Amino acid sequence: MTVKPNIIYILVDQQRIDMLGAYGNDIVKTPNIDRLLDDGILFNNAFTPTALCGPARTSLFTGCIPTKHGVTRNAEKGVPGKEKADPNPELPVITDFLEGYEKIYLGKWHIAETRLPEDYGFTGHNFAHYGFPGSGLYKNLVFDQGPGDHNEYRDWLKKNDFDIPEVSEQFFGNNPNLQTQELRAKLNCPEEATIPAYLADEAIRHTNIAVSAEKPFFLMLNFWGPHTPCMIPEPYYSMYDPLSIPEDPAFNESFHNKPVHQKHISQMWGVYNLPWAEWQKIVARYYGYISLIDNQIGRFIDHLKVQNIYNQSMIVFTADHGDAMGSNRLIEKGSFMYDTSYKIPMIIKQSGERKTGSICDEFVYLHDLFPTAIEIAGEIPPSLDQAKSLLPLIQGETESMDRDYIYGQFTAHFSEFNQRMIRTRKYKFIFNSPTFGELYNLEKDPYELINCIDNPDYREIKKELIEQLLHEMKKLKDPLYGWFHRIKDVY
Amino acid sequence: MTVKPNIIYILVDQQRIDMLGAYGNDIVKTPNIDRLLDDGILFNNAFTPTALCGPARTSLFTGCIPTKHGVTRNAEKGVPGKEKADPNPELPVITDFLEGYEKIYLGKWHIAETRLPEDYGFTGHNFAHYGFPGSGLYKNLVFDQGPGDHNEYRDWLKKNDFDIPEVSEQFFGNNPNLQTQELRAKLNCPEEATIPAYLADEAIRHTNIAVSAEKPFFLMLNFWGPHTPCMIPEPYYSMYDPLSIPEDPAFNESFHNKPVHQKHISQMWGVYNLPWAEWQKIVARYYGYISLIDNQIGRFIDHLKVQNIYNQSMIVFTADHGDAMGSNRLIEKGSFMYDTSYKIPMIIKQSGERKTGSICDEFVYLHDLFPTAIEIAGEIPPSLDQAKSLLPLIQGETESMDRDYIYGQFTAHFSEFNQRMIRTRKYKFIFNSPTFGELYNLEKDPYELINCIDNPDYREIKKELIEQLLHEMKKLKDPLYGWFHRIKDVY
Repeated sequence: MTVKPNIIYILVDQQRIDMLGAYGNDIVKTPNIDRLLDDGILFNNAFTPTALCGPARTSLFTGCIPTKHGVTRNAEKGVPGKEKADPNPELPVITDFLEGYEKIYLGKWHIAETRLPEDYGFTGHNFAHYGFPGSGLYKNLVFDQGPGDHNEYRDWLKKNDFDIPEVSEQFFGNNPNLQTQELRAKLNCPEEATIPAYLADEAIRHTNIAVSAEKPFFLMLNFWGPHTPCMIPEPYYSMYDPLSIPEDPAFNESFHNKPVHQKHISQMWGVYNLPWAEWQKIVARYYGYISLIDNQIGRFIDHLKVQNIYNQSMIVFTADHGDAMGSNRLIEKGSFMYDTSYKIPMIIKQSGERKTGSICDEFVYLHDLFPTAIEIAGEIPPSLDQAKSLLPLIQGETESMDRDYIYGQFTAHFSEFNQRMIRTRKYKFIFNSPTFGELYNLEKDPYELINCIDNPDYREIKKELIEQLLHEMKKLKDPLYGWFHRIKDVY
Repeated sequence: MTVKPNIIYILVDQQRIDMLGAYGNDIVKTPNIDRLLDDGILFNNAFTPTALCGPARTSLFTGCIPTKHGVTRNAEKGVPGKEKADPNPELPVITDFLEGYEKIYLGKWHIAETRLPEDYGFTGHNFAHYGFPGSGLYKNLVFDQGPGDHNEYRDWLKKNDFDIPEVSEQFFGNNPNLQTQELRAKLNCPEEATIPAYLADEAIRHTNIAVSAEKPFFLMLNFWGPHTPCMIPEPYYSMYDPLSIPEDPAFNESFHNKPVHQKHISQMWGVYNLPWAEWQKIVARYYGYISLIDNQIGRFIDHLKVQNIYNQSMIVFTADHGDAMGSNRLIEKGSFMYDTSYKIPMIIKQSGERKTGSICDEFVYLHDLFPTAIEIAGEIPPSLDQAKSLLPLIQGETESMDRDYIYGQFTAHFSEFNQRMIRTRKYKFIFNSPTFGELYNLEKDPYELINCIDNPDYREIKKELIEQLLHEMKKLKDPLYGWFHRIKDVY
């Protein structure tokens, strides 16, 4: 029997694709993520099924789209005491297919509300649902999303004789009715005391245990960042000069002919009328956060090499979704379906013999990793509606995923706003269930500033995209199908 | 011990308030509903908490608003296999307070999905959730919302030697993608074989049983009509000449400055470009349906008088919500908050000594009936967030409900569209969560055709209404409070 390869998911949270060196960014330094590509494959057209943490992570965990697995919104944003954001218990999950593997979960957990990683057979630990382990711990921090009573990060700080870090230079948006989440801040502590360092430490410790036990391992390493608050210590805080950050090409969003809801979200965050000079300071710390995480990923990868298990490990670097980070005058993600939120970085360093780095332009989904990992483990994936294994592509057995488009869906964040997207290589059509639609010509308008939904020149292409979207929705038993089908001729 | 009064709810489904004789309509004949007023009180400003069957009926059943009792949408319109439209099991319901009463349920059930009337201690029967007992039974009927395998109406038709009625002269809207629900149709059968006649028969039979047992009874008599399909036999089908129906004063809706969602709903129903001449034919059958139901209510009231129990019965005539029925180019109800949907008829014939009929202009809610009925039964209502007993008003102990406004909420029908309303005597403000708001000057524009949301003359009044609405939302722990509070200054 051949030894099963280790499977490592390195999942960052809210990573805008073009803000990584490997994806062409000239400013932000990510040498460690980049070097995964030396032995791997970089996907240029990878998409999340939905730009929201919990639903996207549950798709990665089940191989299904949110309306199928049932986690369509983040639990803590739902109706209090009402929404239980748990995946349909009848669906198989990734751990069901990894017999013989040591399963290690570390970091942010956002998959099920009532079940935790240990209920799925994981060792390791998590930040209790959405919990941010700096909340209720860091001095002066306003952002209050703590992991509850049990905070392992606090224990780890203490065990390692680190002082409790202090937060300063906080910046919030300019909405007086929302001053509860720092967009950027300085963390006063050594890099070694940060949450990414803690996670890398824990990843090293837990994989060592698995190696000692001579067991292959499946590791889900879930960084909380670079999700806001972009809160980092020196040298990262000063690593990037805000003035060096060029204006985002989609910054000049007029919101003309866009659903007013997008403007409301921008206003809610208090960034609607933020000048670019203010954005520069946020983006510079977002970059710093990315470089900090990259450095800790590097520590972990070095360890794998020292332990001589790098070659026999499949390593996936990806994100649950992107971040607007100034594009379209928006931040984070939500009920807007721009590529900055829906396109995700994905680099796969395959196990086994070293292959030259390559670039893949095929349309792939985050949840394609579900059957991929199962096949890597030598098992047979269950029948899936949409997700397909990337293994034939990775192994060079095929060059095509045989997909003409990407489908996306969104339900609610802060408020309900059902959306469905069909995105071809050239166009994007969005069905905004409560209002009018969006249609972008991605060739002519890659930053999605001009909504062509009512442009008569696009009448035929719109009709075609609507039919494609309805076809996919019907196939996926999308609950919005009935409503959209009924109004499709007048939409 | 004094004998407890009988309590009778006569609930019609989707009854527009101004389409009843008692409410000033000169054409439609409703002599039996009208004569309840001889001994009763008519409410001119009664409102449903939400214009949707299941949620409104559950409010009547629990005394709570939908976001509190948990049934925020109709089960059959929710995500298939996902939404269980059951009220929060921890809330008390009306039957918990009616010890010693024979509880009789007849007709449409739309309160809980997994619990049926018998689970709440009712005798009688229901149409299995939303079930329309003509579906799967009437020949040629397209509307397919049958009550499932067990159809007591079918048994009753057979027992009484009625032929299965046949449907003809069906009219659907002109949307080719929605041809599944007759808006009007002719039913070929005697009046005695119709569903309203069946319900009146059953009400007579069941109340006779209670009287024989010398028990006071609580009867919920739930007509399915005049909800579409407006499907009636002669003489009602020809009772009203379509040409005699005057154009609705809100028919000339331009949808200018209205959320496009309203236009989508109108288009979905296939009534967007329907000329008034077509509407006249629908409204004439809606009137016919109302008169048919009125006649059957009359039969039942006559029976109460013959049985000599009329005087000792409190009789409430009301509706779960209204019906646009041509106003604003809309039909039925849904995610639009016009008075034609939210104002409901309510006439209460009190028990005990005869009092002169009176008119009440106070703001009252459908769910005020919950504590009212409990007090009528001599019991003490639970603590409630919003509902208040009408008994002091009915008994002349007070003339005021001490309310400056009405609050309304809406979640979803066909599609998600969260709304909140504050309505004073002069203004109505609507928070449409996914888009811009609505503001109507009800004095100058009683048909709500002109949205003043962006009119600078209304800036101050808008601000005031928003604060009032947020105050009420906070008090009610409305889950939309956070989102609305955050964007209130820019809404």
